[in-house]
Amino acid sequence: MRRVLISGVVALGMLAGVGVYAQSKGKVSATASDEDQKLLELARQFFQPLPAVADNPQNPVAKEKVELGKMLYYDPRLSKSGLISCNTCHNLATYGVDNLPTSIGHGWAIGPRNAPSVYNAALHVAQFWDGRAKDVEEQALGPILNPIEMAMPSEKEVIERLKSIPEYVELFKKAFPNEKDPVRYENVGKAIGAFERTLLTPSRFDEFLKGNTKALTAEEKKGLKLFIEVGCVSCHNGPAVGGNAFFKFGQFVDYWKATMPHVTLDKPTIPIDLGRFGVTHKEEDMFVFKSPSLRNVEKTYPYFHDGSVWKLEDAVKIMAKTQLNRELTQEETKTMVAFLKSLTGQIPRHALETPVLPASTDRTPRPYAR
Amino acid sequence: MRRVLISGVVALGMLAGVGVYAQSKGKVSATASDEDQKLLELARQFFQPLPAVADNPQNPVAKEKVELGKMLYYDPRLSKSGLISCNTCHNLATYGVDNLPTSIGHGWAIGPRNAPSVYNAALHVAQFWDGRAKDVEEQALGPILNPIEMAMPSEKEVIERLKSIPEYVELFKKAFPNEKDPVRYENVGKAIGAFERTLLTPSRFDEFLKGNTKALTAEEKKGLKLFIEVGCVSCHNGPAVGGNAFFKFGQFVDYWKATMPHVTLDKPTIPIDLGRFGVTHKEEDMFVFKSPSLRNVEKTYPYFHDGSVWKLEDAVKIMAKTQLNRELTQEETKTMVAFLKSLTGQIPRHALETPVLPASTDRTPRPYAR
Repeated sequence: MRRVLISGVVALGMLAGVGVYAQSKGKVSATASDEDQKLLELARQFFQPLPAVADNPQNPVAKEKVELGKMLYYDPRLSKSGLISCNTCHNLATYGVDNLPTSIGHGWAIGPRNAPSVYNAALHVAQFWDGRAKDVEEQALGPILNPIEMAMPSEKEVIERLKSIPEYVELFKKAFPNEKDPVRYENVGKAIGAFERTLLTPSRFDEFLKGNTKALTAEEKKGLKLFIEVGCVSCHNGPAVGGNAFFKFGQFVDYWKATMPHVTLDKPTIPIDLGRFGVTHKEEDMFVFKSPSLRNVEKTYPYFHDGSVWKLEDAVKIMAKTQLNRELTQEETKTMVAFLKSLTGQIPRHALETPVLPASTDRTPRPYAR
Repeated sequence: MRRVLISGVVALGMLAGVGVYAQSKGKVSATASDEDQKLLELARQFFQPLPAVADNPQNPVAKEKVELGKMLYYDPRLSKSGLISCNTCHNLATYGVDNLPTSIGHGWAIGPRNAPSVYNAALHVAQFWDGRAKDVEEQALGPILNPIEMAMPSEKEVIERLKSIPEYVELFKKAFPNEKDPVRYENVGKAIGAFERTLLTPSRFDEFLKGNTKALTAEEKKGLKLFIEVGCVSCHNGPAVGGNAFFKFGQFVDYWKATMPHVTLDKPTIPIDLGRFGVTHKEEDMFVFKSPSLRNVEKTYPYFHDGSVWKLEDAVKIMAKTQLNRELTQEETKTMVAFLKSLTGQIPRHALETPVLPASTDRTPRPYAR
């Protein structure tokens, strides 16, 4: 897993014009102005269009697996109470998030971190804000057993519920045709993961990257240029415009000072999140988080790992200050936000076609709310 | 609102063969046996096929209203916490229910009654188990403000949230084109109600009622005959196979004795639900509930107003005993259940095509979990 030192990458951002990875990845419209063409070439050094599917050779995306994964994703019986599904906190109708500072789970527990979007998540270098799961297949299995999320007491109880429902047994057989006993906990993750690998949201920015420089407005292009020049691109790059490396939140200003001015580390009035340190226990990972993807960022408020900031303008300013020691003007912020809104993509139709869930049987262990 | 005395209606059930309302409502297949034809004629005295839409002259079902209503139905911002939508407890992917004994609401409150299905509900004589709302338009507004359900503090706060979202303002204008200020609480109910009026689930039983006697299997037809002869039909009739009148639960045996044998009324260990008495305060309404629709009953477990019974077989036996003083044999129960499963219908496609919800704005009051 990469941990990129921000100072080095900012330098890379500065050098961008020199064309470190410069290569032609598609035709540039013949009518594009010189300036547009230069911006396109610059942008292509940092960003790539979304693929059709974020496939995984270890868990190939097959139709049957995606179908099963979608049902599991929407099924609240994967939670102890029978109330909470993956879709509860990663609502596909609201760009894969719950738009809450931090999520509400079993027993009305309020979790410690903001729910990241499931859209385009399969492209990330690792999962969760602290990268503790290596991919979406592994990630999907975490919240099911987390006592303050879906709170299933054990993998065994998850499997008992699923095995009691003949339709699910049949769907697991179809999704994992070479296995003798396919209803296994790991396969729950593989199915949900396969579904998530189809949850990509192409936007006008992809059209731009593919060569149509008219796909973005003049202001959006100005914002893109600024995004690159200021150095945002050093952490937010790749096909997901982020999500592909870890960085300290608070390079120049401690994040909690920027987002919650009343909090100090000496006498914190709320818990200060140590980030990836909790996973690696290395001092250098203190306050380190995965950079989030900025795809659909317009819709995935509130922002940051703690969901402490609601306005995109504020989030942009805080990031520029904490990460790049740069005070953005009102005009710069507005322009940057215009670019960010061009990352709002199309939700794939199949994501929102909710499956009818198979009924429980007399053998299905009952949910319990307490 | 009708309150039908069960004894009278049982007598009516007995008389059914005489053909109290006998009339031909469609062609009977030429190949139908005499027996099938007789059963069809008998059934038509009690049941009607579902209409295409359960329209309401006071709130005509128009496309724009349905579209808005569907978005509101799926929108968790109608709850104080921003977590709970109508669809949380009336999940359209699980036949309009949450399959929990009683629902979980704001603050993890456990409600007192089982969530009835929203499918076909618009056909009911009144809404809620105790009929305290006259129609789906009125019903929809209850849970939003109920402190143990969606817990919005006031109508005003609901409207503030909606008015802060330009897409919603636009949709209300389109749905209520003759109103100057259409974003009103009453219109929230009208829109959701209009959507619910489209949530009908025709099944093979409707094909049968329309004249295709081959639409039901021999066992299902036997079950239908038994359902009529035993007298179940006295409370469960009409297009929704129930939902059109109020009855005492426990005609011959107190319901809590049948469903929870350890409970006595003298020393109840759990609250005994007084039913419609809570609405009318008339002694005759003690333990009186609206008969539920049996459409999709196979999928809407657990059963009764308290969700105390999980197996359909058990529910059928308990009803026969408490309401009709009849001990059904194992064979009779099986046959009856076979008929009841023929009431499992087709969920309309548009119900499950989840709408992408419009984003909140900086003006939108924030959700609060506590």
